Amino acid sequence: MAWTLAEIAKHVGGVVHGDEAYQVESFATLENAANNQISFLANLKYRKFLTSTVAGAVIVNAEALDSVPNNAIVVDDPYVAYAKAARLLNPVRVHSPGIASSAVINESSSIHSSASIGAQVVIESGVVIEENVVIGPHCIIMSGSKIGAGTRLTANITLCEGVQIGQRCTLHPGVVIGADGFGIANDGGKWIKVPQVGSVKIGDDVEIGANTTIDRGAIEDTIIGQGVKLDNQIQIGHNTIVGDHTVIAGCVGIAGSTTIGKYCVIGGGVGIGGHLSIADNVLLTGMTMVTKSINSAGSYSSGIPAEPTALWHKSVIRYRQMDKLVAKVKELEAKLS
Amino acid sequence: MAWTLAEIAKHVGGVVHGDEAYQVESFATLENAANNQISFLANLKYRKFLTSTVAGAVIVNAEALDSVPNNAIVVDDPYVAYAKAARLLNPVRVHSPGIASSAVINESSSIHSSASIGAQVVIESGVVIEENVVIGPHCIIMSGSKIGAGTRLTANITLCEGVQIGQRCTLHPGVVIGADGFGIANDGGKWIKVPQVGSVKIGDDVEIGANTTIDRGAIEDTIIGQGVKLDNQIQIGHNTIVGDHTVIAGCVGIAGSTTIGKYCVIGGGVGIGGHLSIADNVLLTGMTMVTKSINSAGSYSSGIPAEPTALWHKSVIRYRQMDKLVAKVKELEAKLS
Amino acid sequence: MAWTLAEIAKHVGGVVHGDEAYQVESFATLENAANNQISFLANLKYRKFLTSTVAGAVIVNAEALDSVPNNAIVVDDPYVAYAKAARLLNPVRVHSPGIASSAVINESSSIHSSASIGAQVVIESGVVIEENVVIGPHCIIMSGSKIGAGTRLTANITLCEGVQIGQRCTLHPGVVIGADGFGIANDGGKWIKVPQVGSVKIGDDVEIGANTTIDRGAIEDTIIGQGVKLDNQIQIGHNTIVGDHTVIAGCVGIAGSTTIGKYCVIGGGVGIGGHLSIADNVLLTGMTMVTKSINSAGSYSSGIPAEPTALWHKSVIRYRQMDKLVAKVKELEAKLS
Repeated sequence: MAWTLAEIAKHVGGVVHGDEAYQVESFATLENAANNQISFLANLKYRKFLTSTVAGAVIVNAEALDSVPNNAIVVDDPYVAYAKAARLLNPVRVHSPGIASSAVINESSSIHSSASIGAQVVIESGVVIEENVVIGPHCIIMSGSKIGAGTRLTANITLCEGVQIGQRCTLHPGVVIGADGFGIANDGGKWIKVPQVGSVKIGDDVEIGANTTIDRGAIEDTIIGQGVKLDNQIQIGHNTIVGDHTVIAGCVGIAGSTTIGKYCVIGGGVGIGGHLSIADNVLLTGMTMVTKSINSAGSYSSGIPAEPTALWHKSVIRYRQMDKLVAKVKELEAKLS
Repeated sequence: MAWTLAEIAKHVGGVVHGDEAYQVESFATLENAANNQISFLANLKYRKFLTSTVAGAVIVNAEALDSVPNNAIVVDDPYVAYAKAARLLNPVRVHSPGIASSAVINESSSIHSSASIGAQVVIESGVVIEENVVIGPHCIIMSGSKIGAGTRLTANITLCEGVQIGQRCTLHPGVVIGADGFGIANDGGKWIKVPQVGSVKIGDDVEIGANTTIDRGAIEDTIIGQGVKLDNQIQIGHNTIVGDHTVIAGCVGIAGSTTIGKYCVIGGGVGIGGHLSIADNVLLTGMTMVTKSINSAGSYSSGIPAEPTALWHKSVIRYRQMDKLVAKVKELEAKLS
Repeated sequence: MAWTLAEIAKHVGGVVHGDEAYQVESFATLENAANNQISFLANLKYRKFLTSTVAGAVIVNAEALDSVPNNAIVVDDPYVAYAKAARLLNPVRVHSPGIASSAVINESSSIHSSASIGAQVVIESGVVIEENVVIGPHCIIMSGSKIGAGTRLTANITLCEGVQIGQRCTLHPGVVIGADGFGIANDGGKWIKVPQVGSVKIGDDVEIGANTTIDRGAIEDTIIGQGVKLDNQIQIGHNTIVGDHTVIAGCVGIAGSTTIGKYCVIGGGVGIGGHLSIADNVLLTGMTMVTKSINSAGSYSSGIPAEPTALWHKSVIRYRQMDKLVAKVKELEAKLS
């Protein structure tokens, strides 16, 4: 199937420079595109490939237009336009409604007739599944959970008891929502379990990446806000709250009872301690270690980037000697005055 | 269902101050409790909510008693008492014995009649499942594994060949026990596999969080001691030994052939190298990097907490210049003497 | 079953010193071996156990031969010889060909008659499974995927649409290949999804550890080269390329669109940013933070190892004061000149 540049420009709110009737079939990178493909320039690292691209068309902003060798679609934000155009060219996979014969469904659950329930899904008692929900193969939905309209669980996802998922969410394989939080109390040297009685409540338009885990609350619920986007292998502790439209990259760990604000952007591998509060609009760069609350918007960082191992050995020694160095400088100051 | 304060106090070994016949139905936080609920004060961060709570009762230690606005149950350790009372108010979910018709069970396995085997469970040959074990939906128990009495595998857990789990353990969804350790040898530039012939042996009263992985030993077994508590997304390498009653928070990685002592507490995101030894009673704060053995009990740390990104850029430059700084100070010293 | 030292020496290309007809049944560590077992010395940390071992034979290099108390097999690389001998003594588990009755297979898929398809496997449309492939219980193979000859998916693995796996690979439980990459675009404050239209292509002889995730590409494919070995809980972002024969330890996170060279060795817990390039033959020690491209072969590191917490508190303060210290030293220099 092919789309004209006019159709694509209309869909993304852009203006064609060149042949409006030119047809493209799919997206490609500037470097590898053929002339029946469309590309885009968003990250300036790839600008060097623009003038030589053989893509049939390129989505650019006005500034880059002069360097486009073929047709262009000019927009304000080429990355957003690419996202929208790519969806036009690659519609979401449609799943037929119905329940696979190998699924095991408790009869007390309510499943909308438009929902699609895949092979070997297990749905326990009292579950509510709204219209157009897609539950892929091998998912487990435990008692009392509720899944909002248009949400898709791709495959092999476990929702524990009483988990609530909003509308239009996408959960990827291996996700576990609502497993017990890590609550233990030391009873004379022996650790005893603190029952985890809360659950997890997830807003609308949330995406959750593969093998990410979100624990149920100890008393009240763990809460993921509207429009939150979570990458793979994130761990979110019990009773943590993630504010609306916050984005978290892969391998982030957030301990329990921490509140993350709205519109935050958290880089990969960040660790955030428990019982903290992070303001709205906070950016944390990759691998940052957060041990105290952050009360103002802005960008925060920690960690020391890689250096050759021989230098690193020296640096670590210098780091360990900082105390001595400070003492020496004090001594010098005393001598001088 | 409701419990009197007298019943709860008896269960936790506390003393009621106020109305012994007062009834509560569930736990809530100090901040959000209603008067038919009970709360507790353990973390002093939440003391500010004590005087204004409308909870029907609060579990406190003697020191905080005067600030309780309503009924109180006084105990030595409010967190332990909360854990015990919460279990009283929220009994463990009971699973009916029997084997789901969709489970696939090898007939050479021995399953106690009191065990509960959930939907689409797979049990291979020579498996032994003791009394009152609960195997939730989609678990896989490979050949020769053994699961001790009273243990619960919640759902979607994989035990590979010959894994032994003790009594009264709880494993959460996505856990993988006994996958091959990461053993490779470089045979003239090409990596060849070292067969992983050991297995994994897990003690009694162990809890293992969602998506945690514990690899099988190369030759001998990987061993998790009695009463160990593991949070989510922990990785434990082959032939590592975790001592009794050690507690490990989420996202910790422990390489192979390392021995962790007893009663250790390991914070989230810690990394521990291979072939090391960690003494008993070691505390590691979050994100600590352990590259050498730790031979004495005590608290250890590393990592630099977050700062505003602009300052961080400066700090990294300063860090890189430490060598020059030391040289300068030496020069000054020479000049002065 | 037992093997003579002559048989083992022949298999590993070594020379027996002692009784060639001596028989051993299995491997053990130097410390714990019995006299019907064989051991090896590769890591010098364990040399202290050599002279007192009761192992019936030990695989060593020529240098250590004199210290072997019993029979020896002398080789150039004892670890490689151990790997090969351990495979001889522990042959790979054989799986009978055929399709389990509980598997759900789309009839448009092509499954070689020598393949073994386990219990409750789901295979969607247009899948190609070559000879001698083993698909363990609960695996999900989505539409259009292809699995090369001799590859084994142990259990509970999810391959999303169009994933291609080479020959002789081993994937461990919980692995997810081809879930959507983390592509989002900010459309006026609201995050919208960037469709992830590429897939994942994995070479021959690749091993992938438990709960590791490899995302599908946004436009083109994510690529894992020939002979790559990945440990557990690794996250590989969309459009990342991992070069042939590179080895990555557990808990590593690699962001999207990064290219890792050939023959790299990446330690546990390393984090690598997006859109970077890492040269061939780069070694990264554990927990290193990579924020820039690395253009030359060699060893790179970062991170500060653990110290007692009281010292760490001081170190962090000193680190924060480096700027002041530099200023002071400048002042002293000015005074002195």
